[in-house]
Amino acid sequence: MSTSGRVSQKAGLSPGTPVFVGEKKVEEVRITVIDYDADNYEMKDLKKVEECYPYQEKPTITWINVDGLHEVEVAQDLGKCYGIHPLIIEDILNTNQRTKVDIFDDYIFIVFKMLTYNGGPKALDMEQVSLVFGENFVVTFQEQGKKGDTFGPVRDRIKNDKGKIRKMGADYLSYTLLDSVVDNYFKALENIGEEIEDIEEELVTNPTPATLHGIHRLKKEMLLLRRSVWPLREIINELQREETTLIKQTTNIYLRDIYDHIITVIDTVETYRETISGMLDVYLSSISNRMNEIIKVLTIYSVIFIPLTFIAGVYGMNFNTDKSPFNMPELNWYLGYPFALGLMAVVVISMLVYFMRKKWM
Amino acid sequence: MSTSGRVSQKAGLSPGTPVFVGEKKVEEVRITVIDYDADNYEMKDLKKVEECYPYQEKPTITWINVDGLHEVEVAQDLGKCYGIHPLIIEDILNTNQRTKVDIFDDYIFIVFKMLTYNGGPKALDMEQVSLVFGENFVVTFQEQGKKGDTFGPVRDRIKNDKGKIRKMGADYLSYTLLDSVVDNYFKALENIGEEIEDIEEELVTNPTPATLHGIHRLKKEMLLLRRSVWPLREIINELQREETTLIKQTTNIYLRDIYDHIITVIDTVETYRETISGMLDVYLSSISNRMNEIIKVLTIYSVIFIPLTFIAGVYGMNFNTDKSPFNMPELNWYLGYPFALGLMAVVVISMLVYFMRKKWM
Amino acid sequence: MSTSGRVSQKAGLSPGTPVFVGEKKVEEVRITVIDYDADNYEMKDLKKVEECYPYQEKPTITWINVDGLHEVEVAQDLGKCYGIHPLIIEDILNTNQRTKVDIFDDYIFIVFKMLTYNGGPKALDMEQVSLVFGENFVVTFQEQGKKGDTFGPVRDRIKNDKGKIRKMGADYLSYTLLDSVVDNYFKALENIGEEIEDIEEELVTNPTPATLHGIHRLKKEMLLLRRSVWPLREIINELQREETTLIKQTTNIYLRDIYDHIITVIDTVETYRETISGMLDVYLSSISNRMNEIIKVLTIYSVIFIPLTFIAGVYGMNFNTDKSPFNMPELNWYLGYPFALGLMAVVVISMLVYFMRKKWM
Amino acid sequence: MSTSGRVSQKAGLSPGTPVFVGEKKVEEVRITVIDYDADNYEMKDLKKVEECYPYQEKPTITWINVDGLHEVEVAQDLGKCYGIHPLIIEDILNTNQRTKVDIFDDYIFIVFKMLTYNGGPKALDMEQVSLVFGENFVVTFQEQGKKGDTFGPVRDRIKNDKGKIRKMGADYLSYTLLDSVVDNYFKALENIGEEIEDIEEELVTNPTPATLHGIHRLKKEMLLLRRSVWPLREIINELQREETTLIKQTTNIYLRDIYDHIITVIDTVETYRETISGMLDVYLSSISNRMNEIIKVLTIYSVIFIPLTFIAGVYGMNFNTDKSPFNMPELNWYLGYPFALGLMAVVVISMLVYFMRKKWM
Amino acid sequence: MSTSGRVSQKAGLSPGTPVFVGEKKVEEVRITVIDYDADNYEMKDLKKVEECYPYQEKPTITWINVDGLHEVEVAQDLGKCYGIHPLIIEDILNTNQRTKVDIFDDYIFIVFKMLTYNGGPKALDMEQVSLVFGENFVVTFQEQGKKGDTFGPVRDRIKNDKGKIRKMGADYLSYTLLDSVVDNYFKALENIGEEIEDIEEELVTNPTPATLHGIHRLKKEMLLLRRSVWPLREIINELQREETTLIKQTTNIYLRDIYDHIITVIDTVETYRETISGMLDVYLSSISNRMNEIIKVLTIYSVIFIPLTFIAGVYGMNFNTDKSPFNMPELNWYLGYPFALGLMAVVVISMLVYFMRKKWM
Repeated sequence: MSTSGRVSQKAGLSPGTPVFVGEKKVEEVRITVIDYDADNYEMKDLKKVEECYPYQEKPTITWINVDGLHEVEVAQDLGKCYGIHPLIIEDILNTNQRTKVDIFDDYIFIVFKMLTYNGGPKALDMEQVSLVFGENFVVTFQEQGKKGDTFGPVRDRIKNDKGKIRKMGADYLSYTLLDSVVDNYFKALENIGEEIEDIEEELVTNPTPATLHGIHRLKKEMLLLRRSVWPLREIINELQREETTLIKQTTNIYLRDIYDHIITVIDTVETYRETISGMLDVYLSSISNRMNEIIKVLTIYSVIFIPLTFIAGVYGMNFNTDKSPFNMPELNWYLGYPFALGLMAVVVISMLVYFMRKKWM
Repeated sequence: MSTSGRVSQKAGLSPGTPVFVGEKKVEEVRITVIDYDADNYEMKDLKKVEECYPYQEKPTITWINVDGLHEVEVAQDLGKCYGIHPLIIEDILNTNQRTKVDIFDDYIFIVFKMLTYNGGPKALDMEQVSLVFGENFVVTFQEQGKKGDTFGPVRDRIKNDKGKIRKMGADYLSYTLLDSVVDNYFKALENIGEEIEDIEEELVTNPTPATLHGIHRLKKEMLLLRRSVWPLREIINELQREETTLIKQTTNIYLRDIYDHIITVIDTVETYRETISGMLDVYLSSISNRMNEIIKVLTIYSVIFIPLTFIAGVYGMNFNTDKSPFNMPELNWYLGYPFALGLMAVVVISMLVYFMRKKWM
Repeated sequence: MSTSGRVSQKAGLSPGTPVFVGEKKVEEVRITVIDYDADNYEMKDLKKVEECYPYQEKPTITWINVDGLHEVEVAQDLGKCYGIHPLIIEDILNTNQRTKVDIFDDYIFIVFKMLTYNGGPKALDMEQVSLVFGENFVVTFQEQGKKGDTFGPVRDRIKNDKGKIRKMGADYLSYTLLDSVVDNYFKALENIGEEIEDIEEELVTNPTPATLHGIHRLKKEMLLLRRSVWPLREIINELQREETTLIKQTTNIYLRDIYDHIITVIDTVETYRETISGMLDVYLSSISNRMNEIIKVLTIYSVIFIPLTFIAGVYGMNFNTDKSPFNMPELNWYLGYPFALGLMAVVVISMLVYFMRKKWM
Repeated sequence: MSTSGRVSQKAGLSPGTPVFVGEKKVEEVRITVIDYDADNYEMKDLKKVEECYPYQEKPTITWINVDGLHEVEVAQDLGKCYGIHPLIIEDILNTNQRTKVDIFDDYIFIVFKMLTYNGGPKALDMEQVSLVFGENFVVTFQEQGKKGDTFGPVRDRIKNDKGKIRKMGADYLSYTLLDSVVDNYFKALENIGEEIEDIEEELVTNPTPATLHGIHRLKKEMLLLRRSVWPLREIINELQREETTLIKQTTNIYLRDIYDHIITVIDTVETYRETISGMLDVYLSSISNRMNEIIKVLTIYSVIFIPLTFIAGVYGMNFNTDKSPFNMPELNWYLGYPFALGLMAVVVISMLVYFMRKKWM
Repeated sequence: MSTSGRVSQKAGLSPGTPVFVGEKKVEEVRITVIDYDADNYEMKDLKKVEECYPYQEKPTITWINVDGLHEVEVAQDLGKCYGIHPLIIEDILNTNQRTKVDIFDDYIFIVFKMLTYNGGPKALDMEQVSLVFGENFVVTFQEQGKKGDTFGPVRDRIKNDKGKIRKMGADYLSYTLLDSVVDNYFKALENIGEEIEDIEEELVTNPTPATLHGIHRLKKEMLLLRRSVWPLREIINELQREETTLIKQTTNIYLRDIYDHIITVIDTVETYRETISGMLDVYLSSISNRMNEIIKVLTIYSVIFIPLTFIAGVYGMNFNTDKSPFNMPELNWYLGYPFALGLMAVVVISMLVYFMRKKWM
C-alpha cells in the first residue's frame, strides 16, 4: 500500500473535509455527460465541471460519469451543484469506503465495489464506484473507469435502444448500472470457477506447492468477492423497504430481479468457498500420501538389502580358517559361494512375500 | 462449462429479454398437454404452442409440460397465452436461476432443482424445473424431462386414479409435482447413504487415495443437495404464509406434509455432512497410522542389522596380525568365528527385548 | 438398510395412503389397553382393534399402546375410531418421520425418537414412538416396545399409585410418558459419559487405531442423540405456547419441568461433542509424537553406527601395502587395531554428547 | 461418577418426589440463620429446621443457609415453611440442575454453579447453589459450603458494615450473594490465565506431550466455565425484564452492574478459548518441526556416509589383480590409498556444499 | 499480571466502593482543562481538582482530561462535582471494564479501549479511556494519555480552528474524541496489514518456526482488536437509538459516519482473521512439503547406493576360489572388476530411470 492511500492520513482532520484517500489509478480526470429523454440524446466530454450546470435545470435525465477521483474539486463542485452533503463527498473520495446506501430526501447515495477479472496473479481488480441519483440525475464516480468499462453496454443501450431505458427515469438507469456491475460479478465467478477446475485437475494428477499457493490465492479472492457482494444484498433490501418517492413502483420488480442475481452470486461464492476448503484437505492428505509412498520405497529397499549386505559382510570377515575348523568353514566348502548366494535369495524371497502380504507392493 | 451456458453472455442486454442460458440437454423440444376434470381426461403431444390456446378457456385443469428450453419462442408464446411477466419468462430460460417462489395475483411461479442419482462418477444429475400455476392451469418447464421422468407417476395417477387428484384443483396438482421432486431427493439420499457406508467400510479395511477422492466427491454432492433443498423450505413457508386465493384451504395440510418431508431431507443432509467430515479425520489419521507402521518396520530392521553389519565390518578389516599381537587377535582365536556369531546373537536378542518392552512388536 | 424400509418406495403414491416404512422389528403386533380413573383400573391385551371401541365412550382415561407397526390396518382402524387424519396415520407408519408435534382441535399428535443404550458396537438403539392424545384417551405406537420397555414404570405407577396420576387427565399421562423417554436420554448419556472416560484413559495410556474408531463412533452417537433431542425442545415450546383446551393449566408447570430436563440433556450433548472433538486432536498428536519417537530411535542408531561402519570399511580395503608406504600404513602399525577401535570410541562418545545436548536421550 | 449421583435413578418416580441426586460432599448438614435489619443482627447455627420458623413472622430480613443437601427433609421442611413448590424442592436436591431462574408471585428461585479454583489436576471445583428469596427472606442451599466459603465476606459485611446492606432488602442480599459468586469466577479466570501463560512459555521452550494434555485440560475447564456463566447472563436479563415487586427499583442498577461483570467474564472466557485453540496449532506444528529436524540430521549423516562406505566397499573387493591388469589396478598404485581417501574427501565436500545451498545446515 | 491489577482483590467489597484496579502506568496524575465557546478559549493544567469547579457554572464547553487513574480521590471529586453515580466512578477506576455505554438523564458514560501500535514484540498497547459528557462538559480519563497522545489533534483543532468544533456542543466534542480513537484503529490495522504482508512473504520464501510464532502473535492481536471494536458498534447503535436531549439532531449524521468507520474496521479485522488462519494452513503444509523433500533426498541416495554397496560386499567375500570352480569365479575373470563396475552402473542407471518416471528428480 503506498503511503498516499492511507486512511490514517486523515486522522485529526475535521469531518467533512474532502480528502482523496486511495491510489491514483488514472492520469487525468474525465467527465462525461449523457443527457436524454425518450426523444433526445446528447453525449459530451466535459472540460470543466461548470459545463454540466445547465443540465440540472432541464427535465431530461442527466447522467454524469467521473473517471478518476484525485481532483478533489470535481467532486466538491458536483456536490454543490446537486446539493450533496459534504460528508457524502468525503465518502466518495475515500476509496476504503464500505459498501452502503444512504437515503436522503432529495437523492440516494450508493457506494460499492466493482470487480474485474484480469487473469493475472492478483486476478481480481477492485474499483470503488459511487452512485448518487435524484429525481432526474445520476452521478457516478469511478476510480479508473475506462479499463474494462463496465458501463459501456449501458451507454450503448441509451444511445441505440430507443425503447425502454429512454422512457424510464433516473432510478431505472441506476438499477441498470448496478445490474451491469452484478453481471460483472458473474463473469468473475465464471473465471474463478474455471481456475477451481484447473486446480482440482492438478490436485488429482500432480499436486505441487504451487497448487497450494493457488488454493490460498483463490481463498483470498473469495474473501474479497464475499466482502463486496454481501452488503449489496443489504443495499437492495433497504432500497425495497424504504419509502421514498425517488424509486418508482415500476422499478421495484427490477430490484427484485437484481436481488435474485445477488443471491445467486452469494450462493455460488459460498459453494466455491466450501469447495476450496475441501481442496485444501485433499492437498494436505495427498502430500501425506506421497510421503507415505516415498517412505515405503525406502523401507522396501532397505529391508531387502540390509540382511543381504550383512551376509556379504559376514563372509568378508578375515577369520583365520587355518587355525581352527570352526573358523568360517563355509569359505572352504565346495559350494560355499552358491550356498551364500542361495541364502541371500531365500532372504529376498521371504521379504518379498512379507511385503506382498502387507500389500506394500 | 460450455460457452453457450454462460450467464455473462447476457451482460448488457435489456432486462426481460428472453435468452436461453444453459446447456442444450435434449434434441427437440416436446410439449405435452394433459387436460382433465373429475370426469374427463385428455392427453396430447403438441406440435405447436398455439394448439394449447383453446384449453385456456375451458374450466378443466390443464397441465402443459415442456421438455427442453432452447426454443425461446415456446416459453414466450406460453407466457403470452397465460399472461406471465417477461422477467419470469427470462427466469425460466436461465438454468442458473436460484430456487425461489414469486407470488402474483393471477399465478404463482416456482423454480427449483430436480436431482437424479445416476451412479456415475458425477453421481447427481441436476435439472432445473419451473412451475407456473394459476386458477386452472399448471405449466411446467424441464431441461430434459424424459430421462428419469420424475413426473411419470403423477401422469399415471391422473390417468388411472379417478379419485382424489382429479377432483382437486391446480394447486393440488402443483403440490403433487413438488412432492414427487422431494421424493426424488429421498432416493438420491438413500443412494448417497449407501455410498457413505461403502466408503466407511473401505476406511476400516483398506483406505487408499481413491477413498479420499470418494469422500471429496460425496462432500461436493452434499453441497449441491444442500443448496437445492434449503431454499425449498423457504418456498413452502412462503406459500403457507402468503394470503392468496390460488391456494385453497384444503391444500394447506398437504403443504405442511411436504414441509415435513423437506425438513427430514435437510436433517439427513446435515447428518451426512457431519459424518463425511468425520470420515475425513479418520482417513487422515489412518494414513498417519500406516506411515507409522512402515517407519516402525524400517526402524526395527535397521536397528537390528546395523550393529551386526558393523561387527562383520570390524572383522573384515585387514590389520596385519603378524605385525603385532594387538592387531585383531580374534581372527586367530580357535573359536574366533563362533565368538563373532555369538556376539551378533547377543545384539539381536537385546534389540528384540528392547522393542518388545517398547511394545513395537 | 433393507429395501422394505425405504421411503422412496412411497414415491408416486397418493398422499395419505397408509404404507409401513421401516424395518419390521417385532414378530407380532401387540395391543394393550389400560383404562382408569381415580377409582377404577383395568388392563387388557387385545386380540382385535375393535375390542377397544367401547372404551371411547367411557369418561375414564384410556391408554392404548401398540407395539409393532407392520400391520397397517391396526393404525388405520384406531385412526378411524378416534378421528385421526389419514396423513397423521401415514406419519405414524413411517419410521423415518421427523420429531414434531401437530396440534388439532380434538387431539394432539407427537412423534419422537426413543433411544436405548445397549452397550454393543452400535450402542444406541433408536425407536420411533408416536403419541396421540385427546380429551380422555392416549394412543401410543412403538416400533418394538417390549425390549427395554421404557413405559413399564409408568404402567406400574398407574396400577399401584392411587394418588396423583390416576386423578389427572390424558395430558398428564402424555407428559409422564414423554418424561420417561427423556429420562432414558439421561441413561444413555451416562453410559456414553462412561465410554468417553474410558477412551480418554486409553488416549493417555495407549492410543491405538481402535481408539480412533471409538472416537468416531461416539461422534456419530452424539449426532444421533442431538438430532433426536433438539426438536423435542421445540415440541415442548409449542405445547406451552399453543392455546389449546387439551392441556390443562395445572400441567403447564410439568411441561416447564420437562423443558428443563431437555435443556440439560442438550447442554450435556454439546459438552460431550466438544470433548470428543478435543479427543480427536489429542489422538492425532499422540500419533505424531509416537512417530517422532520411533524416528528418533532410528536416527540415533544410524548416526552412531554409520561412521563406525565406514571406518571398518576403510580398514577392510585391499590396497597393496607392499607397493607403497602410503598404502594403508595403519594396517602394519603395531597398535593399528587398537587405534581403529579407539577412533570408533571417539566417534561414539562425541555422537552421544551431541544427542544429549539436543535432549534426544 | 458414583452410582448414587445418577439422574437416571429417578426414572419412573412421580414428578415432585424429593430425591437427592448427587455426591454427598459434606458429612453433616449445617443450617445457619442470620437475621437482621438496620439496627439488629443475630446469627445462629440451628440444630433443627423448626427453629427457624419463628423468623418468618418477623419483619426483619432472614437469611437461612444450608450446607449439604443429602438430608431431604431439611429442604422439604424449609419448602413448607416458605411455601415453595415441591418441583422447586426437587430441583434444589438435584445437583445436575441447569442454571436457571423461576419467578413466582411470592418468591424467586435461582440455581447456578459456583466455581472454585483449587490448583489440582482437576483445577475447577464445581458446586451447585440454589437461592430462593421472597419479600423478607433468603434461603440458600450449597453442596458443601464451608470449604472455600464464598459467602464468608458477605456474612462479615452484614455483621460489621452497619451501612448499606443492612438497610436494603432481601433482593439486595441476593444480588450481593450472586455478585460474590461472579467475583469467584474472576478469581478462577485469573488462575487459568496464569496457567495459560505457563503453557505458552512451555510451548516456545520445550513442548512435550504433557503440554498437550495441559492444553486439553484447559480446554475442558473453559467448557465448564462457559457452560456455567452463559446462562447467568440470561438469568440477570430475565430478572431485569420481569415485572415483579420482589425486586425494587433501586436494586436495578446493581443488576446492571452484575450484568457487566458477567459479560466481562464471558468475553474473557471466549478470548481464552480462542487462545487455547491457537496453542494447539502451535503445539502440533512444533512437533512437526522437531520431526523435521530429526529427519534432517538422519539424512545429512546418511547422505554423507553412504557414498563413502560404498567407496570403501569397492576397494575391499577381492578381485584377483594378478589375473588381469583391469582388475582393480588402483590397489597396486603407489598412491592408491591417498587417491581413495581423496575421492572420499571430494564426496564429503560436495555433499556439504549441497546441504549448505539447501540451507539444511 | 501484577497482583495490584487483579479484579479479585475487590471481592467482598461493597459495590460502589472506588478502588483502582489495574497497573499504574504513569507516575503522576495530570489534570488538564480546556474551556471554550465560539469566541473564547482557555487551557490550563490543574494542581487540584477543586480548581475546575468554577467552570461548571459557566455556559461554555468544559473538557477536563485526567491522565492516570491511581489517585482514587480525583475521580471521586470530579464525580461529586458533576453528579456522577458512584458505580460509574467504580467503573472508571477499573481498567478491566468492558466497553459499554450507560445513558443517564444528565450525562452519558462511555468506556472503551484505545489501541496504539508500537511495533514491539507485543505490538498493540491497550489503554482504557472513560468519557462522561453532559450538557456542557466532557470529562475523559486515560490510563497514561501522554505517550502516543491520541487526543492531541483534537486539542489543536479546538485551539486553532475557530470554525466548526468551537460552535458545536459537548456531544460533538465527544464524537470527535471517539472518532480520533477509531482513526487510531485504522493506523493499527495498517501496521498489522504490513506485518501480514511480511509474514506472507516469509511463508513463500523461507518459513521458519519464527514465522509460526509471528502468525500466532498476529492472531492474538486480532483477538484483542476484535474484542475492542465490536462493542463500539453497539455503543454507536445505542447512542443513535436512544432518545436523549444530550445528543443533538445535527450530531446524528456524524454518528452515522463514525458507525461506517467502525464497520470498515470490523470488516478489515474479519478479513485479516481469515487471511491469518489461511496462513497457518500454508505454513503447516510447507513444513510437510519440506519434510517430504528431505525424505526424498534420503531415499534417492539410499536406494541408489544400497544395492551398489551390496555388490561391493559380495565381491569382498573371502570364499576360497582355489577349493572349487563355483567359489566366486568372477574374482579370477580377466574382466572381473570391469564387470562388477558395469553391473553397478546398470543398477544406478535403472534407479535413475525409475526416479525420473516417478518424477522424484
